[in-house]
Amino acid sequence: MPFTEIDQLAVNAIRTLAVDMVEKADSGHPGLPLGLAPAAYALWSRHLKHNPQNPEWFDRDRFVLSAGHGSAMLYALLHLYGYGLSMEELKNFRQLGSLTPGHPEYGLTKGVETTTGPLGQGFANAVGLALAEKYLGVIFNTPEFKLIDHYTYALAGDGDLMEGISYEAASLAGHLKLGKLICLYDSNGITIEGLTTLTFTEDVKKRFLAQNWQALEVADGNDLGELNTALRKAKREAEKPSLIIVKTHIGFASPKQDMNSVHGEPLKKDEVLATKKNLGWPCQEPFRLPEALAPHFETLARAGARAEKKWLKLLKTYREKQPEPAAKLGRYLSADLPEELIKDADLIFDKPLATREASHKALNLLAERVGNLIGGSADLAPSTKTDFTAHPERTLHFGVREHAMGAVVNGLALHGGLRPFGATFLVFADYMRAAIRLAAFMGAPSIFVFTHDSVGVGEDGPTHQPVEHIMALRLIPDLAVWRPADAYETFYSWEAILRTGKPACLLLSRQKLPVLGAQKDKIRDGVKRGGYTLKGPALSPDLEIIATGSEVCLALEAALKLESSGLRAKVVSMPCYEVFLKQDEIYRSSVIGRDLPKVTIEAGKGMGWKDMTGGKTLNISIETFGRSAPAEKVFARFGFTADSIVEKIKAFL
Amino acid sequence: MPFTEIDQLAVNAIRTLAVDMVEKADSGHPGLPLGLAPAAYALWSRHLKHNPQNPEWFDRDRFVLSAGHGSAMLYALLHLYGYGLSMEELKNFRQLGSLTPGHPEYGLTKGVETTTGPLGQGFANAVGLALAEKYLGVIFNTPEFKLIDHYTYALAGDGDLMEGISYEAASLAGHLKLGKLICLYDSNGITIEGLTTLTFTEDVKKRFLAQNWQALEVADGNDLGELNTALRKAKREAEKPSLIIVKTHIGFASPKQDMNSVHGEPLKKDEVLATKKNLGWPCQEPFRLPEALAPHFETLARAGARAEKKWLKLLKTYREKQPEPAAKLGRYLSADLPEELIKDADLIFDKPLATREASHKALNLLAERVGNLIGGSADLAPSTKTDFTAHPERTLHFGVREHAMGAVVNGLALHGGLRPFGATFLVFADYMRAAIRLAAFMGAPSIFVFTHDSVGVGEDGPTHQPVEHIMALRLIPDLAVWRPADAYETFYSWEAILRTGKPACLLLSRQKLPVLGAQKDKIRDGVKRGGYTLKGPALSPDLEIIATGSEVCLALEAALKLESSGLRAKVVSMPCYEVFLKQDEIYRSSVIGRDLPKVTIEAGKGMGWKDMTGGKTLNISIETFGRSAPAEKVFARFGFTADSIVEKIKAFL
Repeated sequence: MPFTEIDQLAVNAIRTLAVDMVEKADSGHPGLPLGLAPAAYALWSRHLKHNPQNPEWFDRDRFVLSAGHGSAMLYALLHLYGYGLSMEELKNFRQLGSLTPGHPEYGLTKGVETTTGPLGQGFANAVGLALAEKYLGVIFNTPEFKLIDHYTYALAGDGDLMEGISYEAASLAGHLKLGKLICLYDSNGITIEGLTTLTFTEDVKKRFLAQNWQALEVADGNDLGELNTALRKAKREAEKPSLIIVKTHIGFASPKQDMNSVHGEPLKKDEVLATKKNLGWPCQEPFRLPEALAPHFETLARAGARAEKKWLKLLKTYREKQPEPAAKLGRYLSADLPEELIKDADLIFDKPLATREASHKALNLLAERVGNLIGGSADLAPSTKTDFTAHPERTLHFGVREHAMGAVVNGLALHGGLRPFGATFLVFADYMRAAIRLAAFMGAPSIFVFTHDSVGVGEDGPTHQPVEHIMALRLIPDLAVWRPADAYETFYSWEAILRTGKPACLLLSRQKLPVLGAQKDKIRDGVKRGGYTLKGPALSPDLEIIATGSEVCLALEAALKLESSGLRAKVVSMPCYEVFLKQDEIYRSSVIGRDLPKVTIEAGKGMGWKDMTGGKTLNISIETFGRSAPAEKVFARFGFTADSIVEKIKAFL
Repeated sequence: MPFTEIDQLAVNAIRTLAVDMVEKADSGHPGLPLGLAPAAYALWSRHLKHNPQNPEWFDRDRFVLSAGHGSAMLYALLHLYGYGLSMEELKNFRQLGSLTPGHPEYGLTKGVETTTGPLGQGFANAVGLALAEKYLGVIFNTPEFKLIDHYTYALAGDGDLMEGISYEAASLAGHLKLGKLICLYDSNGITIEGLTTLTFTEDVKKRFLAQNWQALEVADGNDLGELNTALRKAKREAEKPSLIIVKTHIGFASPKQDMNSVHGEPLKKDEVLATKKNLGWPCQEPFRLPEALAPHFETLARAGARAEKKWLKLLKTYREKQPEPAAKLGRYLSADLPEELIKDADLIFDKPLATREASHKALNLLAERVGNLIGGSADLAPSTKTDFTAHPERTLHFGVREHAMGAVVNGLALHGGLRPFGATFLVFADYMRAAIRLAAFMGAPSIFVFTHDSVGVGEDGPTHQPVEHIMALRLIPDLAVWRPADAYETFYSWEAILRTGKPACLLLSRQKLPVLGAQKDKIRDGVKRGGYTLKGPALSPDLEIIATGSEVCLALEAALKLESSGLRAKVVSMPCYEVFLKQDEIYRSSVIGRDLPKVTIEAGKGMGWKDMTGGKTLNISIETFGRSAPAEKVFARFGFTADSIVEKIKAFL
């Protein structure tokens, strides 16, 4: 379909809507939409496979605006294509309660595939989305049925491509031959501080070639035909992901074109008018569109609806002719899990084992029951114990790329059809914290497995010993942080994480731990509730000890010793602080009483425990960086022995 | 000096010492030392300018073992060269209290230039070290006096180069033309999970060429001559940093050569013996060295001592002939600051201003008094207000590279001679958290300026609004987190940070804040102590309100309103929690009493405040992600108005 005047009008509709939104809000980023609207339009009108009437269509192309500050452009597109985003919402851009927040938010606005804004994240999410497509395609497609068969498109700016995460993700995408990943790079030569030449003089084309991408160039970002040709070429390349370098003018047609101030400052009223005039835009009044556009976009949207219809027909035939894989696909796409995820027969442990080892066992048993459970490690699988023994194809290898791993897992989770996880040492959660935060904000069912969760790391020393990390993860809103105490709790934590389908971290020990398991049902129910009384003394207790993870066995040991001194201690295991806090008051107060003195034991910073315990509390914690020595010596150095704990508790009481 | 047999013996001494250390500790990484010892030795013996008798010599070449897990190799070198690291310490590798921890620790072991281990950090530190050299050279060198004239060498492995931070830092180094930065890349084709081809198939040479580096190759990492030639060539290149790709064999000469297990698993006793045999090593007994080596290394070390002597002579003449710059250099190198860092005349504010604006003013006044104060932003200077108006040469442009910025600032700080800072939005502290942690662990005088420190970010919305970040930074041990309440506190916070010379974060508001300043001296003294009573009621108070940053003015407003209801509130401003906790008990209890009910007000997660307040406490905080809307509406949405606070306090009491 050749481009005509109506297409140019459509491009300018995107531009002027975006400019009007930013001006009305007196806040936002007019530069990107003005420069990049033609690229976005060429993509959406001629290539993007999507059905505005059903933004959830599984085989739609995924579109990621990695440069999330260009949100106004995305909202304009969603409005024009009929995603149900009203003109009223555009007028409420960046206002409280609107569907048009400052940066696109997944789950809030239909058609937004992922939350973007923090630079580089969207680009890496796109790698995850493309990987999900490829992975699922391998499983379900046949020569006759290309059921999973979509592209993933990303729009990225200079900022995205300066971020380390974009290099990591690009290196991985090139390695994995994600040929259906296509990134349009908005190369406008401008960043916030000035010309990109101020800081960014690498050869982006050569860089992507070095990372096994195809790199194409569009010399004039306003030329719809040239953009279209490049997109076609990108789609034809099956093996390599494609970067399309689009030379654009930031703030195009505005009086501030090519100036850095147009990146994030609204145009003034007269500048808006001048822009519209320069574009030959027929309407002066804001948020006004020429009538010809509505039927034009309806036509475009109808093509998407037809595409889905065709796909649904294909799916129907697939179900008839390939009932087994079709049923499997149904399972992958639903959140349903087998009723019995953990079986009693799984829980046979004849000697102490690290929770990372228990997790390995759990993971490999769960693999048989949750077909779409996949994941891997940032080059630490032999240590994180996150490989699938019987299903090597499900083991992902992220390389030493924690940050990209986090965002790729988010992309896998957002795509649908998979239950993904990523793993590394807890101390390296710092490298991927921005991605973890976004998982939490989106409510994406991403699972992050962090082993070596304390100074129990031992000889590798303080650079590798997390101290502040457990609590620092708990600080992130809407994130469940699990730290099981033994093999049983590890199994049940995996179950809880999979069942809730919410973003979660699973913190596991490097060192061996005794298996508590005498009271299987109690543990199972207790883990589900985040915390529970593991050991209550027969008589009324003198104190309550609350411990997590590897410190629970220490707490039990200390309680025994205290008993011989005539002190009765109740021991609470708290595998998930966040889940416990969500229990009803009655349950919570049955576990953590009001009046007794309390002792918390966790091999990390103690800050924050008093918020839960209230009243008289002793934190047995680690407040400084760790030490390099065998684990037991480090624990002893920090007073994490039963004797030392008993002594502290006696002094405290 | 051509290489002879004694050189080969020296190389094998490094190897066998490292292997013995790892074996004795039964923990550590034998793979790297065995493979990379020739490269390290070629560098140290023929190029590295250093004086083991004075590891602090200012113009020494800097050597960074970015692949910090190869610590045994570095310790062996330090021992052999006479850095005072005894054989006893080598035998105590990775033991409690030794000078030979699992990963090299700056400040603990002489000759260790930076703490490494978390991959990619050392590489980026090296960029900072090289930048410091270049910057100081421009200021102090003359054609006659090349006073600041050293190289910075880094050894990096595949893991380092897979990390996003290494791409960011390399891009910056290439852009800045850091020709005296030379990185030896240990290309052994192996990572922990297997062959690098499992995940890392990019063309590293092309990648570095794309980032404006020179890229050289050494086909045989055991060939001292070839290594030497490459190092010479690298040093001759004045404009571009150099990467020397050294093809090595991990675990060379051991029975596990070229296997991934040799990366991080000790060799067994018989494997150690086999390795020594393969190397033709004359001593079976561990930690034993042929006698010929001592005089050999003494000779090498003497050359370093001579070099320093020569430099000291040059410095002497420089002092005579260029007294003014010499005096300036003296000031740069000392930690001394002018007695009056902040002058009364500075503190004239006639209207409300954001603390980021106050910081801009402070920074530019301080620039006149602290000649070596430099820094910049990750492409947000117009927003972070961290540019030097009268000294543009001191403004650094890091690009959108927060993580590299953090580690480069650490490198600048470790080099000596400069007082560096890096700035971005608080929410992006997540991108650089690993670097902040290392600054704290090293005690490096790095300053991190984080503006837009709450939901006061406004329209940019939750992706850009920090909520958990203030407390998450406070969790990092040995890091001072400053959050001043107004312009006065901002000035005094800058003063405190510069005077203490310790790692610090400075959190600043986007939004305008009233200026409190009626009691200048009280504020000045109070800020120094981390927290102070800003407003004590004439009569005994009914409650204590503790607030930080932008919430202090709210606390004052609320206190006034409470007064009219007959409730007397004391208001405490707490610009630095960590510094306050270090005050003596008497001072602390004079500020925060024991018995009164307490209210904390901070626009972020409240977790952790109760650790300080004890007793009955109400946290007025934000426990969820933020919202996209104008700042005042977001604050109102979360109850951060004086009226809403008063209501909550009344309900609480």
